Amino acid sequence: MNDPETLALLEAVKSGAVEPSEAIRRLKLMPFEDIGYANVDHHRSIRQGVQEVIFAQGKTPEQIKGILASMAKHGDKNILLTRLSREAYLAVCTEFPIEYHDDAHIGVALPSAAERVGCVVVATGGTSDIPVAEEAAVTAETLGSNVVKMYDVGVSGIHRLMSRLDILSSARAIVAVAGMEGALASVIGGLVSCPVIAVPTSIGYGASFGGVAALLSMLNSCASGVSVVNIDNGFGAGYIANMINKTEGIQ
Amino acid sequence: MNDPETLALLEAVKSGAVEPSEAIRRLKLMPFEDIGYANVDHHRSIRQGVQEVIFAQGKTPEQIKGILASMAKHGDKNILLTRLSREAYLAVCTEFPIEYHDDAHIGVALPSAAERVGCVVVATGGTSDIPVAEEAAVTAETLGSNVVKMYDVGVSGIHRLMSRLDILSSARAIVAVAGMEGALASVIGGLVSCPVIAVPTSIGYGASFGGVAALLSMLNSCASGVSVVNIDNGFGAGYIANMINKTEGIQ
Amino acid sequence: MNDPETLALLEAVKSGAVEPSEAIRRLKLMPFEDIGYANVDHHRSIRQGVQEVIFAQGKTPEQIKGILASMAKHGDKNILLTRLSREAYLAVCTEFPIEYHDDAHIGVALPSAAERVGCVVVATGGTSDIPVAEEAAVTAETLGSNVVKMYDVGVSGIHRLMSRLDILSSARAIVAVAGMEGALASVIGGLVSCPVIAVPTSIGYGASFGGVAALLSMLNSCASGVSVVNIDNGFGAGYIANMINKTEGIQ
Amino acid sequence: MNDPETLALLEAVKSGAVEPSEAIRRLKLMPFEDIGYANVDHHRSIRQGVQEVIFAQGKTPEQIKGILASMAKHGDKNILLTRLSREAYLAVCTEFPIEYHDDAHIGVALPSAAERVGCVVVATGGTSDIPVAEEAAVTAETLGSNVVKMYDVGVSGIHRLMSRLDILSSARAIVAVAGMEGALASVIGGLVSCPVIAVPTSIGYGASFGGVAALLSMLNSCASGVSVVNIDNGFGAGYIANMINKTEGIQ
Amino acid sequence: MNDPETLALLEAVKSGAVEPSEAIRRLKLMPFEDIGYANVDHHRSIRQGVQEVIFAQGKTPEQIKGILASMAKHGDKNILLTRLSREAYLAVCTEFPIEYHDDAHIGVALPSAAERVGCVVVATGGTSDIPVAEEAAVTAETLGSNVVKMYDVGVSGIHRLMSRLDILSSARAIVAVAGMEGALASVIGGLVSCPVIAVPTSIGYGASFGGVAALLSMLNSCASGVSVVNIDNGFGAGYIANMINKTEGIQ
Amino acid sequence: MNDPETLALLEAVKSGAVEPSEAIRRLKLMPFEDIGYANVDHHRSIRQGVQEVIFAQGKTPEQIKGILASMAKHGDKNILLTRLSREAYLAVCTEFPIEYHDDAHIGVALPSAAERVGCVVVATGGTSDIPVAEEAAVTAETLGSNVVKMYDVGVSGIHRLMSRLDILSSARAIVAVAGMEGALASVIGGLVSCPVIAVPTSIGYGASFGGVAALLSMLNSCASGVSVVNIDNGFGAGYIANMINKTEGIQ
Amino acid sequence: MNDPETLALLEAVKSGAVEPSEAIRRLKLMPFEDIGYANVDHHRSIRQGVQEVIFAQGKTPEQIKGILASMAKHGDKNILLTRLSREAYLAVCTEFPIEYHDDAHIGVALPSAAERVGCVVVATGGTSDIPVAEEAAVTAETLGSNVVKMYDVGVSGIHRLMSRLDILSSARAIVAVAGMEGALASVIGGLVSCPVIAVPTSIGYGASFGGVAALLSMLNSCASGVSVVNIDNGFGAGYIANMINKTEGIQ
Amino acid sequence: MNDPETLALLEAVKSGAVEPSEAIRRLKLMPFEDIGYANVDHHRSIRQGVQEVIFAQGKTPEQIKGILASMAKHGDKNILLTRLSREAYLAVCTEFPIEYHDDAHIGVALPSAAERVGCVVVATGGTSDIPVAEEAAVTAETLGSNVVKMYDVGVSGIHRLMSRLDILSSARAIVAVAGMEGALASVIGGLVSCPVIAVPTSIGYGASFGGVAALLSMLNSCASGVSVVNIDNGFGAGYIANMINKTEGIQ
Repeated sequence: MNDPETLALLEAVKSGAVEPSEAIRRLKLMPFEDIGYANVDHHRSIRQGVQEVIFAQGKTPEQIKGILASMAKHGDKNILLTRLSREAYLAVCTEFPIEYHDDAHIGVALPSAAERVGCVVVATGGTSDIPVAEEAAVTAETLGSNVVKMYDVGVSGIHRLMSRLDILSSARAIVAVAGMEGALASVIGGLVSCPVIAVPTSIGYGASFGGVAALLSMLNSCASGVSVVNIDNGFGAGYIANMINKTEGIQ
Repeated sequence: MNDPETLALLEAVKSGAVEPSEAIRRLKLMPFEDIGYANVDHHRSIRQGVQEVIFAQGKTPEQIKGILASMAKHGDKNILLTRLSREAYLAVCTEFPIEYHDDAHIGVALPSAAERVGCVVVATGGTSDIPVAEEAAVTAETLGSNVVKMYDVGVSGIHRLMSRLDILSSARAIVAVAGMEGALASVIGGLVSCPVIAVPTSIGYGASFGGVAALLSMLNSCASGVSVVNIDNGFGAGYIANMINKTEGIQ
Repeated sequence: MNDPETLALLEAVKSGAVEPSEAIRRLKLMPFEDIGYANVDHHRSIRQGVQEVIFAQGKTPEQIKGILASMAKHGDKNILLTRLSREAYLAVCTEFPIEYHDDAHIGVALPSAAERVGCVVVATGGTSDIPVAEEAAVTAETLGSNVVKMYDVGVSGIHRLMSRLDILSSARAIVAVAGMEGALASVIGGLVSCPVIAVPTSIGYGASFGGVAALLSMLNSCASGVSVVNIDNGFGAGYIANMINKTEGIQ
Repeated sequence: MNDPETLALLEAVKSGAVEPSEAIRRLKLMPFEDIGYANVDHHRSIRQGVQEVIFAQGKTPEQIKGILASMAKHGDKNILLTRLSREAYLAVCTEFPIEYHDDAHIGVALPSAAERVGCVVVATGGTSDIPVAEEAAVTAETLGSNVVKMYDVGVSGIHRLMSRLDILSSARAIVAVAGMEGALASVIGGLVSCPVIAVPTSIGYGASFGGVAALLSMLNSCASGVSVVNIDNGFGAGYIANMINKTEGIQ
Repeated sequence: MNDPETLALLEAVKSGAVEPSEAIRRLKLMPFEDIGYANVDHHRSIRQGVQEVIFAQGKTPEQIKGILASMAKHGDKNILLTRLSREAYLAVCTEFPIEYHDDAHIGVALPSAAERVGCVVVATGGTSDIPVAEEAAVTAETLGSNVVKMYDVGVSGIHRLMSRLDILSSARAIVAVAGMEGALASVIGGLVSCPVIAVPTSIGYGASFGGVAALLSMLNSCASGVSVVNIDNGFGAGYIANMINKTEGIQ
Repeated sequence: MNDPETLALLEAVKSGAVEPSEAIRRLKLMPFEDIGYANVDHHRSIRQGVQEVIFAQGKTPEQIKGILASMAKHGDKNILLTRLSREAYLAVCTEFPIEYHDDAHIGVALPSAAERVGCVVVATGGTSDIPVAEEAAVTAETLGSNVVKMYDVGVSGIHRLMSRLDILSSARAIVAVAGMEGALASVIGGLVSCPVIAVPTSIGYGASFGGVAALLSMLNSCASGVSVVNIDNGFGAGYIANMINKTEGIQ
Repeated sequence: MNDPETLALLEAVKSGAVEPSEAIRRLKLMPFEDIGYANVDHHRSIRQGVQEVIFAQGKTPEQIKGILASMAKHGDKNILLTRLSREAYLAVCTEFPIEYHDDAHIGVALPSAAERVGCVVVATGGTSDIPVAEEAAVTAETLGSNVVKMYDVGVSGIHRLMSRLDILSSARAIVAVAGMEGALASVIGGLVSCPVIAVPTSIGYGASFGGVAALLSMLNSCASGVSVVNIDNGFGAGYIANMINKTEGIQ
Repeated sequence: MNDPETLALLEAVKSGAVEPSEAIRRLKLMPFEDIGYANVDHHRSIRQGVQEVIFAQGKTPEQIKGILASMAKHGDKNILLTRLSREAYLAVCTEFPIEYHDDAHIGVALPSAAERVGCVVVATGGTSDIPVAEEAAVTAETLGSNVVKMYDVGVSGIHRLMSRLDILSSARAIVAVAGMEGALASVIGGLVSCPVIAVPTSIGYGASFGGVAALLSMLNSCASGVSVVNIDNGFGAGYIANMINKTEGIQ
């Protein structure tokens, strides 16, 4: 975070030529690095509290390395690489240290110990939903949240869920991951007082239509605190759950 | 059931010209009355155990009366008229005695006291699903089943359902009626040992798509004993539930 | 909240027969009042922090009054009646004092002054999205949040949004309401550090398919902090935004 | 079925501390074994009459073995493994005896002779629908029903079906499996007096949309006793048909 | 058919300036009358054997009259006006004699006795499909075919169809009209040796999706001689059936 | 055609025990051979004028051989095997002589010279539609029609079609094969006086949705003589075109 | 265009405090007027060459008047009001002079004579497509283009289009409006060398799905110069056609 | 361009037998070369200003070579081969010189230097959209336009786009390529005064439905100058952008 443009701005603040509030506005809008195939957004952590996350799917290993290099140059750490295939991981990890999570298909580049706070619960309807749930869990943990996992508690055996009411009650945000009929989000939403982020998964067959049945089910949830992200978007759910978990009290 | 064709057949049986087994086969296949705009199926009660049901929607009062007259001539009683609007009811009831169920939009023509047996439970997710549930309940009752109603027990307040486990356990068939995310069928299906007939309703808005969300949810139920009928098809569900409820024990 | 069942439970706690933790679990699961067409959930405020909200669409005025009576008996105040038509409002307000919000189609029964805290921003893409936005705003305000409205700031004139960056930055949760191509949520999501609840609206024509285009657009948002509720579900978005706004700091 | 929790409960019944009816309620709701990636539901046979069925698709051989081990420990036999690929079968059968049905992609673990009763007919429209039909047939047979197969009797050569009316009439439940236009269920539904479970298959091409055409056709059946399960869900249909077949007479 | 352009062409043929074969080609391609809002195609009867048909839906009575006037000027008779509402009929019949068919919503302007030949069968699945069937029947009759009607012979009572095999066998083309699951076309297609034109109708509810279920069912027909027209397009089916019925033998 | 059942029937005719007209009815309905996985329909040529066609896709080589053997036993020749992969062809041709058409994926088993009559035109919009067109052409030729091919005459270069008006005019039935926007059928339909069978193909990308765009386009054709078959169903179109081509003149 | 903010900026330019190029950038981004329910974009004519257009549908007459007042204050003329119902027109025209086009549902407020240049052709497939075409034509004319109308030239009578090749060839941009199968755009696109803007209309029935069939057909056009706007979006097409028509030559 | 037919025509012009204007009309409509599987359109450059483009997908190398040979014979140069796989390129380039663009999957056969004029901007939302953008860029460049690329400027980091307003303003046509929520086209459309051609890409997952979400978003753009081409149709967008870029000024 010591590029010339930023430096000049800060000196202008120092000299009184630019008001601090104006400087913040400019910092939020201006800096990024154009590396041809990507515009790396170096001030996202100022604007959004979280640095840029790399969506690796559809990018070549060379493109990934280029973006990592640009971010490393600015001192970023614990960089999330989502939808990172094992092949891409192997191609990239020769140049950057990466902690790879197989189930979640997530890499954490330039890993560095970080404190975790609060409590996010990640629950799944079945065993097959676990990879998407892991994507959410690793995301929330990497961004700094404690995560409790509660897998295979779907509604066809509702007692499995009911027996863990105390854990659910202690969560500050809950990620509910389910395919097939996706009812898990509604049932949890009716039991707790924190927001529930529902993630439909593409698990199922026939009229599940690759997750559409679960998606519609979740959008039509009769429980009030439920919002929804894209099919299989474990990352998005973990990201939002972390955001909510870390919300500070009103001063 | 005394039309000439049938008479001739029975006399042939009496005379030995036709074997009884052959006579039954012919009775199942042949007789109906062509009244121009409809072919009234008089031997359906032999073939299917239940006489013809009149789907009133899209038929003029004159057509309905014509079919009723044809059935009355054969001695049918307790004739179900489904999707019968109040207007059509008023136009038809001047000639035939009809018991009209407002919520269910069902008429029972030529009503006659009938014994009810067994136990069918009809449950709904919310208050707005009641008209479809009533269609199922009146159908099952008219065809001879005892019905227990359990309304507004949807999954966003799962304790409302859990407190009635004993009633659910005593059912021989359950009709689960729900709109929105349609999760009721799965939760019930996971709690009981009898078949559950799921009825999606067109209740909801936005991405409920007139019941499609609930339909898909139910088709993808993770509970094993759940089958599904068309959106808002309370009649069909009540019909099947009655069929199952009255199944005799294996000799 | 003085029904006999609860009373008995509390006396059991007093006598030591029931542990307080067990009593809380039971309170969360058991009490509701069966009034035939509805099961009024009186302990929802214990379980979920917010008392039952009445979804008025598809309920008769008599049913609405019955539920209100049941809730009033327990001392509830500021009861939200969503999707309440002006006709239903007029039929119900003769028996219960109701504050009616025309644009939002929301009634607040038994209104009572309540403190508002924090900051929720409700933004719309166009003028036609205002009714849905009002539903969100009234909901969040009634539940206790300060709300800032920012209407007609859609992406085809992006400078209208950019000029209010400071307000957006001060929000603790943002509701982004948009029809047509629904891009508003992504643009806002890329500018702020708090969660964005996206509400697709059914505004538009042709290939907007009653809000589906906006819904899909929002589900596929390239910004990370965006989750989505059902088409036109202003209530749900306001409810969740209030939940997040009032999240307490981690102790 | 000898885990400590259950033992304690039963001793409490013996001592009079718990009423038998209460004990049954608790047995239905509580016991399952958490093995990390799955919660094995050991009391499902008490609650539902049929022990847990393992949906093998999307589970690793290790996960399957873990669940089998948990079930074997409780003395379960004839455990159904649906959607079990030949590869998974080969990986699992080294530790557990499994009877593998190739066409049906079903394994029966810890097989044990069992009586079969009643009569379920499984019919298909064409030759290509046979694998789904076999899934239904093996399921119903394993669960204890006699099954009669009637393959390739689709409606474009209706005389093939008509010539077997006597067999259809003797069934207590019929599974109708068909792709393409799925008309088989309606035609059979019009001929018999027992429930028909329709299974759309993904057989076909072009506008069959992977079974959607058949699914819609079956949901819109003009015959009254027809309910539907998910596309290619032979298991579900066989499960329900067995349930109905074994329904006891009303006492 | 005596406009100047045609006259000039024919004189050129007479004089030898244009070859007859070239004159036919020109007649097929050139002449129409531009009346501003429509281009009336006067030589369609040369090109296609049938004169222009007026699709009245979405046209004002004035536009309809203008087109009729243009056609009458050329000596056309028995002009079909499809999708003609009773209101439009009343507005137009003051200036042109029209035979109006209420059920079919078809008018025949400037009616004139015409011979009918061959045999087209028009069959329906139910009573509610009759209006669409009438559109087909009136079209085929007006264009010169004998029509036999066979209504309410749907597949849930297959014996009603089987008893009329002899009539079906004598048809030269069959129009099969059905809503709901649309199976009628396949069953008939499997019984006869002439082409079957299937017409899905928008009759039904729920997952019939305004005729889409029947449309898909018919497109996926397992019988080989079945082709399909648009939902509710009775006119198109009648037109094609007449075309086939009147096909001459190969010389 | 010398199975015992047929023999007995014919002797009964000879003896006067059965009327010839009754015998024909029975021949149409009864005979088929059950070979376990298929019911071979030996009297289809009596009922439909064309013997059974084998849809090879989804059948094993053993099943195909079994059906062929059953048909060969009855003296059938020129048996069509549609959707026959090259692999299946190679597996089957060792036992039965088969003429294999690579483009069309059709085999003709037990080939035998046959006369061809009349004229069917098969036209395509582009070069990529040729395989589907070949399926139609080979089918019509094998069943006895002369076929004229007219490939790559799509509407973006309309003069290519216009220059062949004379050939189009001489056809007795036309098969119009097109993907993408499928407009070919409408343009041809507006130029000729014989029926046009439209075949949408799955050629295209993006919003062609595997042929759905072309299918819808064809169903909505503004030309009157156009009917449609399933996506890529060249066989069905060729079958119907042959049916129409061979229609005899009205006596 | 004399609001204080703009004034201050221009004075800063005059004084040399702001560079002219910077001033233009600021003018493009900043000014709009917030009137509560709308943010009127006064500098759109600088940024986009065309002033703000008012989409009247879904706005109250009071909102429309407010926006008009804000625009009138800045000296705007010939303001387009699209989707303006006759009722809204009557309510608004009392305060502002408006030229109302009934077919097109467009009002032109504060009308003022303007020069028209170049040539835009607006063509329709049928008579029923005229209202959408008129929306395009009035838009292009009001924005300053000469328009030639060519109605009812659909592809089922292709000679109607071919006879006007010379007019098509002289166009600088063509708007092709069609419902049903929407083939018009492809055929025109194959004949001309200027861009074609395709507008699908919601004209049709059954499987036209409110314009979706035409939309898909146009998106899949096999002609290269065709782009598409939303269903019934005549305004958008006229706007773009005018943009292209007025493109200046490259200097 | 020296085929006999054209020669004869030109001699007729020379001799006065054919008017030049008539000759041009004939040249536009008549000449193409039928090579069996394709009709090569040699006069397209007269009719449309651009010679035939070869859509290579779905064509065999032999077919491609045949078409190239036919075009080469007429002296065509810089022939575009779109959707050309590397394999097909390698098979064809042995006989014809081809410049192959790997990202764009485009080949330029018989390449020849050509002047480029004006300015087309091609922008993408993300890095993964680049291949489609390259297809547009190579197309526009080959046809003679200068192209400026602006990649990875999506709306979740809107400042990346805002910082390049000057480049956008200088474009004569803009191609906006985006997957996921496709909002880029609307934002750009609101900032510039030239036409924007939007290209949805199939990039994304889950509810992006292979580009449908982006397609719908773009069709519903709230910016006025945006039209849309098929999903992934970079070629079409580049073709139209070049058309607009090269539009001459009105004389």
